[in-house]
Amino acid sequence: MKQMAFITNSVSKKLYRTAKALPIVDYHCHLSPKEIYEDHPFSNIGEIWLSGDHYKWRLMRTAGIDEAYITGKETSYKEKFLKYAEALEFAAGHPLYHWSHMELAKYFGIHTPLNKASAEAIWDEANAHIAKTGMSPRKLIAQSNVAIICTTDDIIDDLSWHERIAADTTITTRVLPSFRTDNVMLMRREGYVDYIQKLSAVSGVEVVDLRTLKQAIANRLDFFVDHGCRCSDVGIPTFPNRIADDTESNEVFRSILAGKLISDDEYGGLIGNLYVYVNGLYKEKNMISQWHLAVVRNANSILAEQLGADCGVDCVGNTVDGNALIRMLDAINVRSGLPKVVIYSLNEANIAQIACITAAFPNVRAGAAWWFCDHKRGIEDEIKTISENASLGSFYGMLTDSRSFLSYARHDYFRQILCNLIGEWVQRGEYDGASAKRLVTKICYMNIKEDLV
Amino acid sequence: MKQMAFITNSVSKKLYRTAKALPIVDYHCHLSPKEIYEDHPFSNIGEIWLSGDHYKWRLMRTAGIDEAYITGKETSYKEKFLKYAEALEFAAGHPLYHWSHMELAKYFGIHTPLNKASAEAIWDEANAHIAKTGMSPRKLIAQSNVAIICTTDDIIDDLSWHERIAADTTITTRVLPSFRTDNVMLMRREGYVDYIQKLSAVSGVEVVDLRTLKQAIANRLDFFVDHGCRCSDVGIPTFPNRIADDTESNEVFRSILAGKLISDDEYGGLIGNLYVYVNGLYKEKNMISQWHLAVVRNANSILAEQLGADCGVDCVGNTVDGNALIRMLDAINVRSGLPKVVIYSLNEANIAQIACITAAFPNVRAGAAWWFCDHKRGIEDEIKTISENASLGSFYGMLTDSRSFLSYARHDYFRQILCNLIGEWVQRGEYDGASAKRLVTKICYMNIKEDLV
Amino acid sequence: MKQMAFITNSVSKKLYRTAKALPIVDYHCHLSPKEIYEDHPFSNIGEIWLSGDHYKWRLMRTAGIDEAYITGKETSYKEKFLKYAEALEFAAGHPLYHWSHMELAKYFGIHTPLNKASAEAIWDEANAHIAKTGMSPRKLIAQSNVAIICTTDDIIDDLSWHERIAADTTITTRVLPSFRTDNVMLMRREGYVDYIQKLSAVSGVEVVDLRTLKQAIANRLDFFVDHGCRCSDVGIPTFPNRIADDTESNEVFRSILAGKLISDDEYGGLIGNLYVYVNGLYKEKNMISQWHLAVVRNANSILAEQLGADCGVDCVGNTVDGNALIRMLDAINVRSGLPKVVIYSLNEANIAQIACITAAFPNVRAGAAWWFCDHKRGIEDEIKTISENASLGSFYGMLTDSRSFLSYARHDYFRQILCNLIGEWVQRGEYDGASAKRLVTKICYMNIKEDLV
Repeated sequence: MKQMAFITNSVSKKLYRTAKALPIVDYHCHLSPKEIYEDHPFSNIGEIWLSGDHYKWRLMRTAGIDEAYITGKETSYKEKFLKYAEALEFAAGHPLYHWSHMELAKYFGIHTPLNKASAEAIWDEANAHIAKTGMSPRKLIAQSNVAIICTTDDIIDDLSWHERIAADTTITTRVLPSFRTDNVMLMRREGYVDYIQKLSAVSGVEVVDLRTLKQAIANRLDFFVDHGCRCSDVGIPTFPNRIADDTESNEVFRSILAGKLISDDEYGGLIGNLYVYVNGLYKEKNMISQWHLAVVRNANSILAEQLGADCGVDCVGNTVDGNALIRMLDAINVRSGLPKVVIYSLNEANIAQIACITAAFPNVRAGAAWWFCDHKRGIEDEIKTISENASLGSFYGMLTDSRSFLSYARHDYFRQILCNLIGEWVQRGEYDGASAKRLVTKICYMNIKEDLV
Repeated sequence: MKQMAFITNSVSKKLYRTAKALPIVDYHCHLSPKEIYEDHPFSNIGEIWLSGDHYKWRLMRTAGIDEAYITGKETSYKEKFLKYAEALEFAAGHPLYHWSHMELAKYFGIHTPLNKASAEAIWDEANAHIAKTGMSPRKLIAQSNVAIICTTDDIIDDLSWHERIAADTTITTRVLPSFRTDNVMLMRREGYVDYIQKLSAVSGVEVVDLRTLKQAIANRLDFFVDHGCRCSDVGIPTFPNRIADDTESNEVFRSILAGKLISDDEYGGLIGNLYVYVNGLYKEKNMISQWHLAVVRNANSILAEQLGADCGVDCVGNTVDGNALIRMLDAINVRSGLPKVVIYSLNEANIAQIACITAAFPNVRAGAAWWFCDHKRGIEDEIKTISENASLGSFYGMLTDSRSFLSYARHDYFRQILCNLIGEWVQRGEYDGASAKRLVTKICYMNIKEDLV
Repeated sequence: MKQMAFITNSVSKKLYRTAKALPIVDYHCHLSPKEIYEDHPFSNIGEIWLSGDHYKWRLMRTAGIDEAYITGKETSYKEKFLKYAEALEFAAGHPLYHWSHMELAKYFGIHTPLNKASAEAIWDEANAHIAKTGMSPRKLIAQSNVAIICTTDDIIDDLSWHERIAADTTITTRVLPSFRTDNVMLMRREGYVDYIQKLSAVSGVEVVDLRTLKQAIANRLDFFVDHGCRCSDVGIPTFPNRIADDTESNEVFRSILAGKLISDDEYGGLIGNLYVYVNGLYKEKNMISQWHLAVVRNANSILAEQLGADCGVDCVGNTVDGNALIRMLDAINVRSGLPKVVIYSLNEANIAQIACITAAFPNVRAGAAWWFCDHKRGIEDEIKTISENASLGSFYGMLTDSRSFLSYARHDYFRQILCNLIGEWVQRGEYDGASAKRLVTKICYMNIKEDLV
């Protein structure tokens, strides 16, 4: 793959030079603070790429590769890597085709296309490079010019790794925790009552009803904010279609604690109540509240049971109900005012609707192309949709949402695609070239950086 | 922005020369017949642009501008204009970026990009131009070569301004009322019974049940048709998913008149019954029946309460139920035959479905890209979708749906986009150049003009 | 229209040379085995094009042509052809504009655009060509280099025409039956009990309950497989949103046989049970199971009653419920493992979701752009969506889904569009040119050919 394959004209090329030089603010990812702190060098490219990257596993499955070569414990990383190369060879147009080759170029200095024929040689060359450079998490972060990383942390996390990172003056990148409420919201999962006991313990509030639940959450948020937390995040499959009042919510929550089954409607009402509450807290703390919508988890029950969560069998959910979204934003707005809210939908069919809804509520933004939408066309469509229905100048730009330290290449991917699009507009006379450089700087760096400080 | 920024090849350029010269038929807009008749000169560009244009208010909100500079009564039009310029500068890709610059060029002779730095100078230059030319509604209409304007009028309107316009021989543009049934269909709004009393008064029919309601509507339609009305229009959020029979509908309507609450299902059935009825009337009168679907009104309750309706907090609704749409079209077809029906959806995710449905029913057409879809890509997509699923040669083309006399620039926008697309097809050999000019003429002028006569 | 109008660059041109030479595997169509066997020469282009092609009827209806010239019995094929030419002239961008001109070029040697002015001359020239060449089904198949045809056959069909074709050594194209279960699934249609009696007769199993129904289906499948059947197919409007157990399903089925009415929910549960069952059978037989989703049949009841089924008034249905799709795939996977499943949706708004779901289940693929989606942009979008969310290298490529022997031109259409897209990627440096030729060969021929053997 050519370098700058996504740049097609000279104006874009010039804009991209500006974008490329900007630091990265990765305001939502799943990097491990422990791995950052410990900074163990990597052993081989098979491990880096295939030990936990469910994007790659999915591609291999659709290419008809046997599960043994995907997640099997009997097969070596080399065998897996060779199979991945076979799958990749015919994955034209897939974001992994783009990302994998960008990563090979950027982090390994390898510019050969990866395919069945070249796989052995690339395996050797990449591993030699890893050994020679002592490639490790912190080296990759430094090489990628990352200014800020917001990890994703359970609200009961003790943030000890974050404390160690903060105390280590050799780490110049700011690594901030994010307040991820999924586990407290997923109230009908097995083990929920145990989870609440842990929450009670770490928050110092005995959670016995809705009031104490809210107090415990507020305490944890104080703790997170004390550790530099600026973002929250929720990514559960259900978006509440109504907001129960405190009395009802309290009863339903007590039923859950008592181990009783509750209905979909009761559950929806209760988490609706909590959405309003937590976003009020985020508003107080001037935080960024991220909502990840329209996802189905663990679609393939056999693989999910064999491999556990995050094994690559999550899916795009049905479109979010726009009316429910409006009711929720309006309720928060009425009660406390809206914090900075960023809405992501995994279902591309309601992204224009969501962008349009954000324009009715100050402080609310449509987020970057998320997860399965995070490919060239998806990124272009998201940028276009925000530009058409909201305001491109307010866009927070790219995040990786990734578990991989190599995935900073995706910021480069985004920046090429963004600059190419804006450059084309300038070249055709649809946008003023004199403002383009500042616009790109706002989207790639300044907007999110200013709101995170 | 370059003139003809949306024309990219020589065939399109030639086609556009044809399109540009055609008169405009604006068959659905919200221009005020009073303003047309009175023809007061404008005072400044801030007033023209920002006194009532909720598109611009939305953009300013998404750009983070304080409401005081958007709708605040304490701030001057100049202050608002300067803030709008700031918002616009980074609104690359937004239709307002295109429209505003096209309006500056077409109506003010200003070809400088509007941004923070240029705003002061453009404010002065635009206002000088307004003063010098005595810019007024009728002058803008004449300058824009508008043949026919169909305004949007409540069915109880006395059409007195239309009468005055018709009597004024200096107005050569035909200004026709349209029969907008929203207020009679929105039966669960506060004040509905008062509205029905007014309807009784102006129609001369005491509305006490379904039969008299229908009679009153029919009388009003006769009155409108006598005043040149050729189009009807409905744009309520609910599309009926069933059609209640007359007995049920009558009971439900009488409950409404008695001030009782009715259920969603009862309401849907009743307006389903009315849809069938009024479209039968439109068929008799050989009218064009416009359906505007998939909208949510007044999403942000705080702003809606502060500022009233049409303040820029309406949103794209969920997709319309295609099965309900089919049942409705089929029911009208069976009962009375279909009038010319034009279906608009604000939710782009069901436009292909709607275009496809129209091809199963003669006389039914998919409408132009509507409201939030009315941007470059939205217009292109609408044209493509109609061409793929219906017949481009039957398309009614552009309308403004606007409250602004400057918005005729959007017809130019549409014509550039249309000509560019068809010209590209011709240049690639996908369409016969010999028919292209006539096709463009049909879409931009002839189709709607012939059906309005 | 230019030849290779859809090829825009030199890399694509070279790829297309490879694609063009490959045999066609038409793995889902509605060609009549009787017509293939009998091989009657055609009489005129009006008959070929307009006697049964509901795509063309739809276009004529949207162009405002009177039904008399579409399906009327009083009008000649010539009159119909002339009217079709009028409609086509302004159908820029319509797939029929592309297909009709490709068919004229490929099968009639006519390169003049068809329009009102040229229609008479083309009528004469085309008919002269038909007479001169003795154009017939088998000649068209041979000329089109078709290796395999999978027809669509009711499960009670005696396959006698397939037997005759198989016995005729002059037919070198393999013509295989497909197992279409619609009529056994459409349990609430009039005449269903009669249909079940026929099924009993041909299967040798007296169908009196769920168990015997399943046995009868299994017997028929054995019979089909003995006749070379490799594919199954279902295209009913309802996709089951739940899976009833055998006890409930048996009761509901017995109610149906007893002529009782059943609810939507009961019906959904029962066919859910059958989906799981038949896909288990397909898995056993190593078959390809095709699911055609999101369709509404007979939308315009007047035309459907006048003209019968397949008269051009079918429509795009609402999006399929992704959750229901996941539950179904998972249930089949748990019970029997998944056969090769190909999922088609007529509603483009959930194609990305479906492609994404397929990547969670090995053996499941998103199908080609289907029916109303089968136009240039639809084909491009389907290719892109599969490439982004699944794996282009596993795509089965094009099928015609057609009743017309001329429709092999659509394979050419697909191949141009595919090669153009991949060639563009190569040219921009987004894909490795060294793998492109093999990728195209896999998609256009090898993937489906290998899985059909």
